[in-house]
Amino acid sequence: MEAKVAELRTRLQDISDIGGAISILRWDQYSYMPKGGAASRARQVAALARIAHGLQTAPRLGELLSELAAEVATRPAEDELRGIVLEAKRDYDRGVRVPERFVVERSAHTAAAYEAWCGAREANDYRVAEPFLHRSVELSREYSSFFPEFKHPADIHIDDSEPGMTAELLRTLFAELRAQLVPIVETLCACAPPADDFLFRHFPSADQVAFGLDVIRRFGFDFDRGRQDFSPHPYSTTISLGDVRITTNINEHDLMDGLSSTLHESGHGMYQQGIRPVFDGTPLSYGASTGVHESQARLWENLVGRSREFWTYYFPKLADTFPGQLGGVSLEQLVRAINVVRRSKVRTNADEVTYNLHVVIRFDLELALMTGELSTADLAEAWRERYRADLGITDLTDKEAVLQDVHWYDGLLGGSFHGYAIGNVLAAQFFDAALAACPDIPAEIAAGRFAALHGWLRDNIYQHGKMFTPAELAMRATGKPMSVEPFIRYLRAKYGRLYGVAL
Amino acid sequence: MEAKVAELRTRLQDISDIGGAISILRWDQYSYMPKGGAASRARQVAALARIAHGLQTAPRLGELLSELAAEVATRPAEDELRGIVLEAKRDYDRGVRVPERFVVERSAHTAAAYEAWCGAREANDYRVAEPFLHRSVELSREYSSFFPEFKHPADIHIDDSEPGMTAELLRTLFAELRAQLVPIVETLCACAPPADDFLFRHFPSADQVAFGLDVIRRFGFDFDRGRQDFSPHPYSTTISLGDVRITTNINEHDLMDGLSSTLHESGHGMYQQGIRPVFDGTPLSYGASTGVHESQARLWENLVGRSREFWTYYFPKLADTFPGQLGGVSLEQLVRAINVVRRSKVRTNADEVTYNLHVVIRFDLELALMTGELSTADLAEAWRERYRADLGITDLTDKEAVLQDVHWYDGLLGGSFHGYAIGNVLAAQFFDAALAACPDIPAEIAAGRFAALHGWLRDNIYQHGKMFTPAELAMRATGKPMSVEPFIRYLRAKYGRLYGVAL
Repeated sequence: MEAKVAELRTRLQDISDIGGAISILRWDQYSYMPKGGAASRARQVAALARIAHGLQTAPRLGELLSELAAEVATRPAEDELRGIVLEAKRDYDRGVRVPERFVVERSAHTAAAYEAWCGAREANDYRVAEPFLHRSVELSREYSSFFPEFKHPADIHIDDSEPGMTAELLRTLFAELRAQLVPIVETLCACAPPADDFLFRHFPSADQVAFGLDVIRRFGFDFDRGRQDFSPHPYSTTISLGDVRITTNINEHDLMDGLSSTLHESGHGMYQQGIRPVFDGTPLSYGASTGVHESQARLWENLVGRSREFWTYYFPKLADTFPGQLGGVSLEQLVRAINVVRRSKVRTNADEVTYNLHVVIRFDLELALMTGELSTADLAEAWRERYRADLGITDLTDKEAVLQDVHWYDGLLGGSFHGYAIGNVLAAQFFDAALAACPDIPAEIAAGRFAALHGWLRDNIYQHGKMFTPAELAMRATGKPMSVEPFIRYLRAKYGRLYGVAL
Repeated sequence: MEAKVAELRTRLQDISDIGGAISILRWDQYSYMPKGGAASRARQVAALARIAHGLQTAPRLGELLSELAAEVATRPAEDELRGIVLEAKRDYDRGVRVPERFVVERSAHTAAAYEAWCGAREANDYRVAEPFLHRSVELSREYSSFFPEFKHPADIHIDDSEPGMTAELLRTLFAELRAQLVPIVETLCACAPPADDFLFRHFPSADQVAFGLDVIRRFGFDFDRGRQDFSPHPYSTTISLGDVRITTNINEHDLMDGLSSTLHESGHGMYQQGIRPVFDGTPLSYGASTGVHESQARLWENLVGRSREFWTYYFPKLADTFPGQLGGVSLEQLVRAINVVRRSKVRTNADEVTYNLHVVIRFDLELALMTGELSTADLAEAWRERYRADLGITDLTDKEAVLQDVHWYDGLLGGSFHGYAIGNVLAAQFFDAALAACPDIPAEIAAGRFAALHGWLRDNIYQHGKMFTPAELAMRATGKPMSVEPFIRYLRAKYGRLYGVAL
């Protein structure tokens, strides 16, 4: 048994190390690589993906996992080895369904599609990227075909990123979310919007970066085990649990753009940094799901970073940093400005209330692309149509519309966007539970102290890594199944007060 | 034949891609990685090194190479395929001698030794690094034992980096070099040294970086196919021929420190960027040898970057950049100051005349470590003794002495330092040939134009990659075998004039 466990850990460590190498190659591609490196980078990543797949599907690994799974099956859910073995077995069982040549094709395609997306954005022309997206759809459908037991072609993609979730369940969840959100949006958008013009003055990049770094250092992001760089689309990546990286992107004419992404990615990063070291080098060294991961990012970005308490502490510092730009602005004005609810073009900059409507649009389009009801040739028009219908937005350029997000150009479709909405929902539910356990969290935040909140999250979410499914984790951490209720309640209370309306 | 060539190229491309991935991992380790990433980085590099070794020694590759070698053997020396096949066969024949477990051990050790070197420098204490260096010596000797046909234990290491060279030949070369240099050093160090205090004023980092970038852009370093970052020990690395990176290290109290390293590394980088694209992904996508590579770095650093012509163009710009620090300094004073000859502690900052004496000390110590005549426990004292005897330097701290260079802590011994001396010698010989072919190069440089020189180097050196041995390349490019004569002649002329003495 002991020898088998040791062999398993070595094999998993190898897979994880190759995965870490791929993560560095991609991190470099997004942040530092000169353009002349693109072709070889695509090949390098594809070569490593093929190697990782070979390790991942080695028959000996399959044997080991079958034997160990039988031995640990009866252990309690909290048993670390049980968790590692079962998750590794899940990965193995899925991996062996996928032929190596598909892995290589997908990997090479992903790198090429990312470059195409960058080029298309520069040219503001979807046509440059469309053939690549078309190929992404084909590959996504082909991947689904390896798992015929799933009902909807998106289901395997959804389950890969969100264990236990299906297109059907998401449709129900999103229908409920939408039904609750639409009247709130109606009411708030009918009010006169608070002034927020001062957020769009000129805020020099270096000052923004320094301010953001100070915030996330106080949050508890550990710079001995991580760093922040810049990339067109901010993201986070884990090289190992001792090396967790985030990126940001500064807009000198939009104060909250870069800061939000810094706070958001720090939430992802702290989650990874908080995973128990024993899970390093195993498939449990990642969050419970894309949605749970997103919840940790949105929690710090919004429930903390857009709260009155946070700015009670940070507004004087912000005003000191940008005295010219923010002269005469009060704390109250700032808090209202950064929480303006507005039907807008860009998901990442959307307020908390309308944000999920952006997600639902992408989710619906993605499912339609996956089933073939919608072709990539018609996507740009379908996108515009939905933004017109759902958000009343017109005059979108390609860059503001279908080229807005990197996701479809940086991997397969189907597993991309629903996590954001789940994240918003769970963030409120987790925050609620944290407040119930530590009622002084708001006062702490107002004093610039984040240890109580960080500690609760570490103990209840971070440390478990991928030990539990999202449903199990929600139940353990909050005592309840996932529900939109805390999120809607949070929105009603916060925005009712900010706008002085009954919601 | 065609199918075999295609298969060979695919296999070589794979090896090269894994090599590129290793290069990125190490580049990141030196420039950006947070310290928490060290342990996993060592494993990641070791995992890829093992994979590369497996590809490199695949029996099918051996068969292919034997068959193709027979077919191309009679082709002319200029034939590209012949060059690729023969070089790949040389790599293969050496690779199969080395067991996989050695490759993994070496790789893991190298990463650990680098971390130890960083820590030892911080603590200014050789004892921290000594056990790692001891292990490096053991591994170096073990590597030699795989190649018993070589006479001296350093010979295989030397031949790996400098094809055709041996410890014996280098001893002869260095004896001649030393014999010529010592009286020149004596004469120059007996003169009153020109004032150079103004070089050690405060020069803000950002201004130094901008100045250096402007210079190397004019030299012809292509930033679409490369970039510059920062690392404790400046170096250059090739991810692919489209992605060639250099690093620098700025000292705000030493103007020439960062600039020299920027110019130096740009020489390495331009060499790599100038290699014929057909060699990308093959073992010919590197320079002819460490020594030839070094010649290209030293040529731009010294023969260009410390010349009166270069500063004729750049001094007014430098004075504009640092008006306070350089107020009242003339072009003549600057040129004298940056060429002060002085027995000094640090190799990388040494002037052109004494530099090779530093190299010879390291070379002798390295050979003694390799044969076992010297133990790592006694190295610190042996180092101090030689600096006292050869350069009259006393009072060296560990950081200034045996911890000065990264080389022995970042790979095996035996192939590390001789390349610098060969580089100095060849740089003068190549520059001589370039001037003979394009006599207006000095006037061009004085006008800030470097295209004639860059073009000659590209046509005669860069493009060939590793097609020819150093000896063949010297003959082709200069019409003569390698000789110290042009280097000594260059020193006599330049320093005789600068110091107003007969040399």
